[in-house]
Amino acid sequence: MDKKNINNYIHPGERLDDLQRNGYVLIQDPSLFCFGMDAVLLADFAKAGKNDHVLDLCTGNGVIPLLMAARGKGGFYTGIELQERSADLATRNALVNNMEDAFKVIQGDICNTRELLKENARLPADVVTCNPPYMAGGDGLVNPGDEKALARHEISCTFADIAGQAAGSLRDGGHFFLVHRPRRLVEIMRELEGKELEPKRMRFVHSFAGKEATMVLIDAVKRGGAQMIVEPPLIIYEEGGGYTAEVRGMY
Amino acid sequence: MDKKNINNYIHPGERLDDLQRNGYVLIQDPSLFCFGMDAVLLADFAKAGKNDHVLDLCTGNGVIPLLMAARGKGGFYTGIELQERSADLATRNALVNNMEDAFKVIQGDICNTRELLKENARLPADVVTCNPPYMAGGDGLVNPGDEKALARHEISCTFADIAGQAAGSLRDGGHFFLVHRPRRLVEIMRELEGKELEPKRMRFVHSFAGKEATMVLIDAVKRGGAQMIVEPPLIIYEEGGGYTAEVRGMY
Repeated sequence: MDKKNINNYIHPGERLDDLQRNGYVLIQDPSLFCFGMDAVLLADFAKAGKNDHVLDLCTGNGVIPLLMAARGKGGFYTGIELQERSADLATRNALVNNMEDAFKVIQGDICNTRELLKENARLPADVVTCNPPYMAGGDGLVNPGDEKALARHEISCTFADIAGQAAGSLRDGGHFFLVHRPRRLVEIMRELEGKELEPKRMRFVHSFAGKEATMVLIDAVKRGGAQMIVEPPLIIYEEGGGYTAEVRGMY
Repeated sequence: MDKKNINNYIHPGERLDDLQRNGYVLIQDPSLFCFGMDAVLLADFAKAGKNDHVLDLCTGNGVIPLLMAARGKGGFYTGIELQERSADLATRNALVNNMEDAFKVIQGDICNTRELLKENARLPADVVTCNPPYMAGGDGLVNPGDEKALARHEISCTFADIAGQAAGSLRDGGHFFLVHRPRRLVEIMRELEGKELEPKRMRFVHSFAGKEATMVLIDAVKRGGAQMIVEPPLIIYEEGGGYTAEVRGMY
């Protein structure tokens, strides 16, 4: 879609970002949750065949499917998003990237994923991705009416819910890729394993080489055998400031 | 003990190594399992107060208690070792380092740790350390009569046994420090959590900054609350070869 037509899809207060790869763009609403580095890292970490059906849980404005598509990962995408305004944004993002046939956005609760997908998309999925709310429901101050808080806190769904829905949607041997906080790693591993999603590959993200990990990228395989690979650490910033060469290569 | 007297404790075929810190030495038998970098990394990673009772499971020639003592970590040490020849070596290593009152070596099966410690050492322990056999019983070819194989393979005890014995020996709030292979991480976390040993801190060890992790150091707290910190990656070698400054500082 050309720039002039794209402008018809941008509502007042929203902005248009260039995803810096193969012409993909993203409409964002600064009053909602905007994508951050975690989305870029997840799309870089995830793998998908060119015909794979990629299901993105908690898709928000649809940034993960768009970043995956921009990298040639996957062939068909479904995004599920609870919040109406975000789901509407994701639908428009599919349109302005000429992906109306390749990216289906469904507004609904991911706790009903199978039900939501029954009439809307191919099941089982080959790949599931998720950039979930990081904070457990009770952590920190939360205003339940706040749409940004819903994207950050487990108000509408817990990690156990997400893992269960990912497992229920995936074919055997299919991959679940997620990004989360290392501080919840023990719980995450327990919940994944309990849902027959075997964590097979992890990568820890450190802002600087000498700092604690701030994010963890996880690749779990449905009914996969037990064997974990911990990849080289992903360092965001050089000691002197500025992105490392690896991160620059992702943008 | 002076060098001349130490020589009386070295049997034919054995060698004496300098632990390069505060005069501590170690008699090793090259026909048994000799200590490697994992022992040094574990002693560096572990923490203990100066009066703490440190219990070392699978102590081998006693290298972990000696490395801990050389770093001023702990005040009283107990080592349990199944193999008679290794336990004898550990006993002599306590003697030649003038630790006969501070380091008790018990020859026996760690599956009976509480029984073995009842008459020999203070319980509960403040700290438990373990550099366990890394390979699951069935992995690879094993000659059960091979003393080196016993140190590398889970022939006499599984990781679940070790975690259970560590938990049973520790006071609430006491720490279990271990080194293991990342490929078994999911199982390790499950077994620790199942024994009320909450993994709280981890550090992954990479031979080079761009390589997969080859070891993981874990700090689990008995009945600790859930919150994981993943420390900065520990890199062994510089890109050009030679140890990194951090590793040089440990020797």
